[in-house]
Amino acid sequence: MMKRGKQLNGSAAEVEAAFYDALNRADVEALMLLWADDDEIFCVHPGGPRLHGHAAIQASWEAILERGGLQMRPSQLYETHNLMSAVHTVVEGITAGASEPAHLLATNVYMKTPQGWRMVMHHVSVAPGPMPSGQHPPSSLH
Amino acid sequence: MMKRGKQLNGSAAEVEAAFYDALNRADVEALMLLWADDDEIFCVHPGGPRLHGHAAIQASWEAILERGGLQMRPSQLYETHNLMSAVHTVVEGITAGASEPAHLLATNVYMKTPQGWRMVMHHVSVAPGPMPSGQHPPSSLH
Repeated sequence: MMKRGKQLNGSAAEVEAAFYDALNRADVEALMLLWADDDEIFCVHPGGPRLHGHAAIQASWEAILERGGLQMRPSQLYETHNLMSAVHTVVEGITAGASEPAHLLATNVYMKTPQGWRMVMHHVSVAPGPMPSGQHPPSSLH
Repeated sequence: MMKRGKQLNGSAAEVEAAFYDALNRADVEALMLLWADDDEIFCVHPGGPRLHGHAAIQASWEAILERGGLQMRPSQLYETHNLMSAVHTVVEGITAGASEPAHLLATNVYMKTPQGWRMVMHHVSVAPGPMPSGQHPPSSLH
């Protein structure tokens, strides 16, 4: 279980679960606490520019979550990790109605910082076609 | 200098330079040698699906490079790294004429493997607007 407060002692997977939980709850404050306390953090929303640093990233989430949570669940996670970093690639469903079938692909990178595991990169793009069928369980195969 | 052969003793930055060099030369063989010798490698081309593993990734590059090299240079690199992994975020120019101004954003992840530094993830998306002006030198600030 993740402890409360700024010290996150959970794994990268727990930080990711908290990340999508915060998106679902439209809780920008909780969301931003999951990012590394470092200027060199980056976020690319679907079709968007590269956002750099806490202020730009927080402002983007405030705009996205203004109308409420995203009701988004990551699935088909693959994880590549070592002692200090973890790279997750996940499929994100699209809840809003799109004109053509599409799904989102996210790369989430976590680093172990003095404050615990934190997100340093969230890069999402739109892929054509419906959600790929899950050939694998929605958990890490590593 | 990077040594020849499968043993790459260069840094992640040198692997990245070799990656874009191989793209420019349309050298798929050289390109694929830069990826980790692991099934868990992933590639997302602009607007494309998530490709998983050497066979799918190699086939995609063969199709993309069929007509020649991309004449692409990464710029505005930021690098977050530790002893075992490096996450690069770069702006890739678009050489082909697009209907509206756009640029590409790439997240490139490298891991230190028994064979040396290798790419494990290449995720690219299209961003609106022209290439952002380079407020920073085209090299790592770390």
